[in-house]
Amino acid sequence: MSAAARLHAFYHVRSEPAAIEARARALAVEQSVEMPLAAIEEPSVLSDIVGRLDGIADLGAGMFEVRIAIAASTIGVDAAQLFNMLFGNSSLQDDVVLHDVELPEDIGRAFGGPRHGIAGIRERAGIHGRALTCSALKPQGLAPARLADLAARFASGGLDFVKDDHGLADQFFSRFADRVPLCAAAVRGTATRYIPSLSGDLETMRRQIALACNEGVDTVMAAPMLVGPSNFAALVRAFPDIVFFAHPALGGAARIAPPLLGKLFRLMGADVVIFPTYGGRFGYTPDTCRALAAMARGDLLGLHPSLPAPAGGIALDRVPEILDFYGVDTMLLIGGSLLLARERLSDEAAAFTRTVAAHVYR
Amino acid sequence: MSAAARLHAFYHVRSEPAAIEARARALAVEQSVEMPLAAIEEPSVLSDIVGRLDGIADLGAGMFEVRIAIAASTIGVDAAQLFNMLFGNSSLQDDVVLHDVELPEDIGRAFGGPRHGIAGIRERAGIHGRALTCSALKPQGLAPARLADLAARFASGGLDFVKDDHGLADQFFSRFADRVPLCAAAVRGTATRYIPSLSGDLETMRRQIALACNEGVDTVMAAPMLVGPSNFAALVRAFPDIVFFAHPALGGAARIAPPLLGKLFRLMGADVVIFPTYGGRFGYTPDTCRALAAMARGDLLGLHPSLPAPAGGIALDRVPEILDFYGVDTMLLIGGSLLLARERLSDEAAAFTRTVAAHVYR
Repeated sequence: MSAAARLHAFYHVRSEPAAIEARARALAVEQSVEMPLAAIEEPSVLSDIVGRLDGIADLGAGMFEVRIAIAASTIGVDAAQLFNMLFGNSSLQDDVVLHDVELPEDIGRAFGGPRHGIAGIRERAGIHGRALTCSALKPQGLAPARLADLAARFASGGLDFVKDDHGLADQFFSRFADRVPLCAAAVRGTATRYIPSLSGDLETMRRQIALACNEGVDTVMAAPMLVGPSNFAALVRAFPDIVFFAHPALGGAARIAPPLLGKLFRLMGADVVIFPTYGGRFGYTPDTCRALAAMARGDLLGLHPSLPAPAGGIALDRVPEILDFYGVDTMLLIGGSLLLARERLSDEAAAFTRTVAAHVYR
Repeated sequence: MSAAARLHAFYHVRSEPAAIEARARALAVEQSVEMPLAAIEEPSVLSDIVGRLDGIADLGAGMFEVRIAIAASTIGVDAAQLFNMLFGNSSLQDDVVLHDVELPEDIGRAFGGPRHGIAGIRERAGIHGRALTCSALKPQGLAPARLADLAARFASGGLDFVKDDHGLADQFFSRFADRVPLCAAAVRGTATRYIPSLSGDLETMRRQIALACNEGVDTVMAAPMLVGPSNFAALVRAFPDIVFFAHPALGGAARIAPPLLGKLFRLMGADVVIFPTYGGRFGYTPDTCRALAAMARGDLLGLHPSLPAPAGGIALDRVPEILDFYGVDTMLLIGGSLLLARERLSDEAAAFTRTVAAHVYR
């Protein structure tokens, strides 16, 4: 990491016009040395470590964009420290949103990004020229055999991926060690991949991946903001053959701009970035979703692109519109609305599969 | 964990009056099964797992308090899963704030809370009848020997605790393995305790604690929202002799009500809960701070009380006011304003020490 490398963080700050410059300078200090500059004796700290205010733009309506250059040396290669230096203390101030960050190439190389990315996922699944499909095993509270039955029915409908609901942890009603072998067995011999959801501390998650691998699983999911960014990144490093889905739980949309999760989860190594799409239950706008998908799979420091997986309330009749919006390098994740079909679940899953396969992109 | 036990989560939701009941019901579903209730076939899931809407109160000005009973069985004993079920998906919706949670006794027993708490900290330090004092080693960018020099000067001023700034991770300019032995040595033979800040993934933090223990350190700090709540809890379980400080970085105050961190960090085992006080840089009100301190050290499921540590811009001349406000079971954390004294640092630290020791509580 070059000593001079800087990240460029963009914050949206609510302020009176007369106060914004002082507020911006305070933000630069808060996100770097967090102390009065007058108390710093070392010239090198002032020049190389203190956050540098690079610009203020008036966004109108009392909002300003503040651009701060953060020394890459304060982050090193630790993912949690990246979040700490971008928004650690400022997340406690309610006048500021972390809007975006431009990363130096060193950071991209150091973190590594997705190990498989879109091309790797397609290669493994043997799927080209169409979007990918996914659904979720839920509700939590079902016994492992019932979850496995759902998995089998999704598989018979031809879905590419069936993931644990992110609410499935290691509860007594469906222990990880009980449900993963059953769900993996339920899709065995089909083209469907089962994706267990990891939970707990790092050691627990390592054991969960080892257990899943023993059952032939090669793809898992975790929520970086729940498991801790450094632990997510540690799993990606420790299991290079595994494809990782990132779930946005606890992502705090209103304070960390949603599109940024596409970039940061990718940097940490997520091959698939799940997010709530516009028109669903989460109130994201089409522009927000377009930006998130672009951050997940657009050019970024030479890293593999991540596959964006819109979710959160997609009904089958919206699939053509969603596909046109996101394009072919997309995984559609439909959960509850397939489960509404109940005894017709396999048929509904098959209709989902057919619609995605037959779609002609506008 | 009894199958019927419920947590009572309180959300503040912005809504039109006509829409609040539907919004509240949607929130109960989002934070439990996350699927259409019509797709759930099992009566036991509907009765025992789905979040139960227990009440809606109009707070005025378009805000409502929504009370939802969440099944304790969906959480088990995993700290990240606690956050997931309280606010995982809803953190992505910008009309809702997690305001409070009432926990069943089972959860308290299962998590265990602080292993030492206020009494344990006082016993170890031999300090009774006065508040405790703390300062921080910064700025980041200083070499380990310079940080150790600061620690020595704080110690000569008689502070009880000197902690790493939460920005100190494992950067090349002050590697954990380099600075911890030097800083620990700098306070050895004094009454001052040095508190290293942990960072990285769980295994890295375990090694950091082991290294610190070898240097005679018995107290450490970590930010639960950065390291992942489950990993913080895992460290507390793995190192029962260590006192843990919890730093609020990435706590996202505007979406998770600040006082709640006092309760949740305590539940996970933090002996000391650091938070930004009113009148400093963070805009918390006195009511917010009073509530946070009450959650940290008031009655909670029979758990040890945590020591509240107000911080974030306290100047020496505010110490009497702050002590009167928080009372004697408090740790005052003053960083930047002591460092402003520069060559007079030890004297300023000694003045801080004297002021706290001599304070007569109103």
